[in-house]
Amino acid sequence: MTAIAASVLSSALHWRYATKKFDAAKKIPTETWTALEEALVLAPSSYGLQPWKFIVVQDPAKRALLSAASHGQRQAIDCSHFVVFAGRKNYSETDLAHFIARVAEVRGGGTGPLKGYADIITGTIVRARSAGLLDAWIGKQAYIALGQFLTSAALLAIDTCPMEGIEPAKFDEILGLPALGYTTLCAAAAGYRAADDKYASQPKVRFEAGEVILRA
Amino acid sequence: MTAIAASVLSSALHWRYATKKFDAAKKIPTETWTALEEALVLAPSSYGLQPWKFIVVQDPAKRALLSAASHGQRQAIDCSHFVVFAGRKNYSETDLAHFIARVAEVRGGGTGPLKGYADIITGTIVRARSAGLLDAWIGKQAYIALGQFLTSAALLAIDTCPMEGIEPAKFDEILGLPALGYTTLCAAAAGYRAADDKYASQPKVRFEAGEVILRA
Repeated sequence: MTAIAASVLSSALHWRYATKKFDAAKKIPTETWTALEEALVLAPSSYGLQPWKFIVVQDPAKRALLSAASHGQRQAIDCSHFVVFAGRKNYSETDLAHFIARVAEVRGGGTGPLKGYADIITGTIVRARSAGLLDAWIGKQAYIALGQFLTSAALLAIDTCPMEGIEPAKFDEILGLPALGYTTLCAAAAGYRAADDKYASQPKVRFEAGEVILRA
Repeated sequence: MTAIAASVLSSALHWRYATKKFDAAKKIPTETWTALEEALVLAPSSYGLQPWKFIVVQDPAKRALLSAASHGQRQAIDCSHFVVFAGRKNYSETDLAHFIARVAEVRGGGTGPLKGYADIITGTIVRARSAGLLDAWIGKQAYIALGQFLTSAALLAIDTCPMEGIEPAKFDEILGLPALGYTTLCAAAAGYRAADDKYASQPKVRFEAGEVILRA
């Protein structure tokens, strides 16, 4: 693996900000967008379960509806590509079996040798379900993917805006997610900042490193 | 902003895997680690609240205790740098005021013009608290930071292992987090894969892109 320079990472992360106003005329080139979809596909998740769907919404009519279900935020309309992050509801043993079958398919050897692994995951699922935390645990995984997406985009010089201020139930309806058994967790707009997005030039606000990084 | 090539991103994300066995003799150089701490500090969060602490644990005795509280996983001991991601419990209006003061400090202009912004955030906090979802919402933010950390590390050719299979209550005690009002959410080991980590050479298992990426 050839590493990028630490200074390249640092400059990309400083450059990134939550873009409020996108230049609606600028579209992300295909090769770049393909790399960002790959970043979603390759995102890490607990046990590698990938309990998610990423809905890339390019239909202008749907984008308008999603904007209305986001307190009218224009990012959903003006950005180049709009992604909704959805998580599996009531993740089940059937979902797990589907995942284990995929592991066997990719790595070979059948599902037999994977039984121990599957049992461990089943234990985690059962415990989370009993504690009423199953959807919450599954949902958190999508935030790892969101983080990977935002970081990857910055390194490709693509602007993004992560969006939590949305109405998940309305998003679900607009995108037909209930029928699939998935639910909206968050979204991200991607594209290019408008020349007059006033937020672009505001200093980034972070606590001092010494306040958020503790040593033990 | 100078973008990295899409192929560089792709190759880093393919190279990344959840490292099970670290080479305990190899340490991350200071400049590289500093960049990774910066990736944590700069991680995105809802409203920019940064409701977290990142505990970098380098004390071998504590690392041994954390390993024991992680079902004996050796990564906590053998990695170069071990980070615990903690979230604020019962995020309060006092926490928000501290954040708003920081915004004013960095951007100037006092807190007066920020009142509208603070009121919006207060509304979100109050609604989350009423719904019993405050800690869950705050906790999800740390997973964005985890995603940014894992992606950044891969680009710097640093191996990582995200860890959820830990006992948060024991982590909290070992690190003295209850007194600070924070609680453990997840952890990440960082360093270099051991030459004999058998997981390094296993094909990465992902569903087909067409299964996880939907179009609308």
